[in-house]
Amino acid sequence: MPIANQPQPVWQEAAIASVVNLVQAADGDFGVIDKLSEVMSNPDSLQSMFNYLTDLPEGKRALQERPRVGAVDLQTLSQLPIDSFGYAYSQHMLANHLKPIQAGPVETDLQYIGAHITETHDIWHVITGCNTSIFGELQLEAFYVAQLHATRFWLALLTKNLFKAVVYDIEISGQYMEAICQGWQIGKQAKPLFGTPWQQLWQQPLSAIRAELEIERAED
Amino acid sequence: MPIANQPQPVWQEAAIASVVNLVQAADGDFGVIDKLSEVMSNPDSLQSMFNYLTDLPEGKRALQERPRVGAVDLQTLSQLPIDSFGYAYSQHMLANHLKPIQAGPVETDLQYIGAHITETHDIWHVITGCNTSIFGELQLEAFYVAQLHATRFWLALLTKNLFKAVVYDIEISGQYMEAICQGWQIGKQAKPLFGTPWQQLWQQPLSAIRAELEIERAED
Repeated sequence: MPIANQPQPVWQEAAIASVVNLVQAADGDFGVIDKLSEVMSNPDSLQSMFNYLTDLPEGKRALQERPRVGAVDLQTLSQLPIDSFGYAYSQHMLANHLKPIQAGPVETDLQYIGAHITETHDIWHVITGCNTSIFGELQLEAFYVAQLHATRFWLALLTKNLFKAVVYDIEISGQYMEAICQGWQIGKQAKPLFGTPWQQLWQQPLSAIRAELEIERAED
Repeated sequence: MPIANQPQPVWQEAAIASVVNLVQAADGDFGVIDKLSEVMSNPDSLQSMFNYLTDLPEGKRALQERPRVGAVDLQTLSQLPIDSFGYAYSQHMLANHLKPIQAGPVETDLQYIGAHITETHDIWHVITGCNTSIFGELQLEAFYVAQLHATRFWLALLTKNLFKAVVYDIEISGQYMEAICQGWQIGKQAKPLFGTPWQQLWQQPLSAIRAELEIERAED
């Protein structure tokens, strides 16, 4: 499979269209987000992330061991101590009416990167302390950009949100920029989250995991 | 003139098209930047900035006194002491083959806002220490967003640059984010630059003006 560093014109047009469609879409239209994910998760983009991750000790180990979150029972996790990561995760999921995502089997490194990022997204919300408001999502999008180095999907979501502010709600731009820069700083300072074997950590105190990963939030 | 807080659909479509055209345009195509400026400088957008600026003591005074940069002779400024603002400005303009922009007469507050921002752009480059590389431009775009509160034009330029990174050069995204967050922080911390009577300050030391405006750069 040839990996070109320069995206091709046909892909570029599709990428532009997928962002514009999301700018124009109603909130909660998951079809356009799926389309964005499909376009932005092309081999070029995953290869860029792969190249970066394999240069990190944590990323290299994760790609060798390929830890998976596996089946998650929220009711069981909600019985854990209230300071535990598992309890915090269960409360986050239940409060937001979310179900744990399982991304299916993988064969290649690039498939693993995609699956792991998909199935750990809600975990990253909890670990980083980014809530599910638009401001929390923007923090987390910038956190992803900081942590994954060359992630078209997350930078496209961040860009889409700024684009929406330009077109529909410029008064919100300051809060958006603040959220982005907070997420960026936290993501730059933290150790790499990619590849963490979260399934082994449910019983650990959330604060201890955050300290270990050097996730520092101004409000903590 | 009715000022609607919600942009109208026809304007929204034009705004989206003007950003996309810039994403697709070749570097240095000033026609598409002029078109972006025309679309983003609509009365709604200028009114949002006006509302913000009149709430600031510096902004209110500037709108009353309407200081203008006036005619600038780069050769004369280049004879000033080398630590002066005027000397630094002249060197910036000469090194970048730029000519001072004069924005013409104004009658209304909104016209003044547009004209003042246009004719002080190169001055803001010098005062903030943002160079004319893409990284310096991104820093300055974020600085504008921090200082002008609700500026569609500058947020659109920033968004366009992130959009280009998504589509054409994702490897650059970290440097772009770093530049944006630096510019945002400097802009948030600094006193308002809008309305500064620059034409009275050519002979002042650049460092003294920066200190007065509380512009602090990590590398200073």
